[in-house]
Amino acid sequence: MATTEFTSLNCSLADTLQLVGDRWAMLIIREAFFGTHRFEIFQKNLGIARNILTTRLHTLCDNDILLRVPVKTGARRHGYKLSDRGYDLLPAIIALNQWGDRWLHERTGPPIRYLERRSDEEIDDIVILSSSGCQLSAWDLKLVPGPGATEQTIKRLQQLERDWKKQREDKRKKISLKKRL
Amino acid sequence: MATTEFTSLNCSLADTLQLVGDRWAMLIIREAFFGTHRFEIFQKNLGIARNILTTRLHTLCDNDILLRVPVKTGARRHGYKLSDRGYDLLPAIIALNQWGDRWLHERTGPPIRYLERRSDEEIDDIVILSSSGCQLSAWDLKLVPGPGATEQTIKRLQQLERDWKKQREDKRKKISLKKRL
Repeated sequence: MATTEFTSLNCSLADTLQLVGDRWAMLIIREAFFGTHRFEIFQKNLGIARNILTTRLHTLCDNDILLRVPVKTGARRHGYKLSDRGYDLLPAIIALNQWGDRWLHERTGPPIRYLERRSDEEIDDIVILSSSGCQLSAWDLKLVPGPGATEQTIKRLQQLERDWKKQREDKRKKISLKKRL
Repeated sequence: MATTEFTSLNCSLADTLQLVGDRWAMLIIREAFFGTHRFEIFQKNLGIARNILTTRLHTLCDNDILLRVPVKTGARRHGYKLSDRGYDLLPAIIALNQWGDRWLHERTGPPIRYLERRSDEEIDDIVILSSSGCQLSAWDLKLVPGPGATEQTIKRLQQLERDWKKQREDKRKKISLKKRL
């Protein structure tokens, strides 16, 4: 595991970004998901410099996101394929892709459509769902300390909750003032 | 809109990463989602250098992900808040966060738990869903050219589909050979 400069943030997002929060890393993972195994094909499809590609592939292998595998059974030369851990990044990658479709390709429409193979129907937008299957927005969420929270994170989240309650209270007061006027 | 060195890839993921595919950009967005408005608070909570923070805030504002707003009504000093476009990155951010919870914090448990405020229950894992609500894996997906596809993307996806069919055929042959032996 790479040591992380962000570890002090006590945050899973920061730790994830330390490993894959780099444009090339994400695009290499997408390329592997597209079925690319060989160094030369990664290079050709991404137009990436050899030295950058070498470094990124190393880091992804060291962190068990890609696996080194023989290009053919018994072959000496090796290629790369996604591990379970790598495949598990797919929801995040598709969510970022869909964001780009919505906000950066409004005029032309998406370059690539993701279908369910069985039905040939477009997959759903990636959204935040409650345990009962309702779509949630930022305002429906409450953040609480988990078992891995540091003292600092606990204090931060308590402050966040106090701010939220104060904001809600202020809003209520404004509404009741408007009603009285 | 920033000009993108990745535009030639004809890929919404690449275009999105051009804007937010940087560790600090994503962490600034998360910080804004946590309710941080002021430059000093971003700096304190993220431990980021002033010049890097300034550049990143500028880029995020230029790309309509953050909005510049007065810190109080009528105040001259400005702060930052997420635009609709910014909030729309939340599913991707939570998906990356959950990946970190699963694969980098197995021992300690997650630092932060995301609950639905109404029910106090943990939100669902962010997954890929079909239009009929079934969870999909990488193998259930089929990629086809969208309206924004270039000639090159169309060829690429056709090749991908041929490769997939060949692999499936090879697998079938192997299985039927095993049965005969």
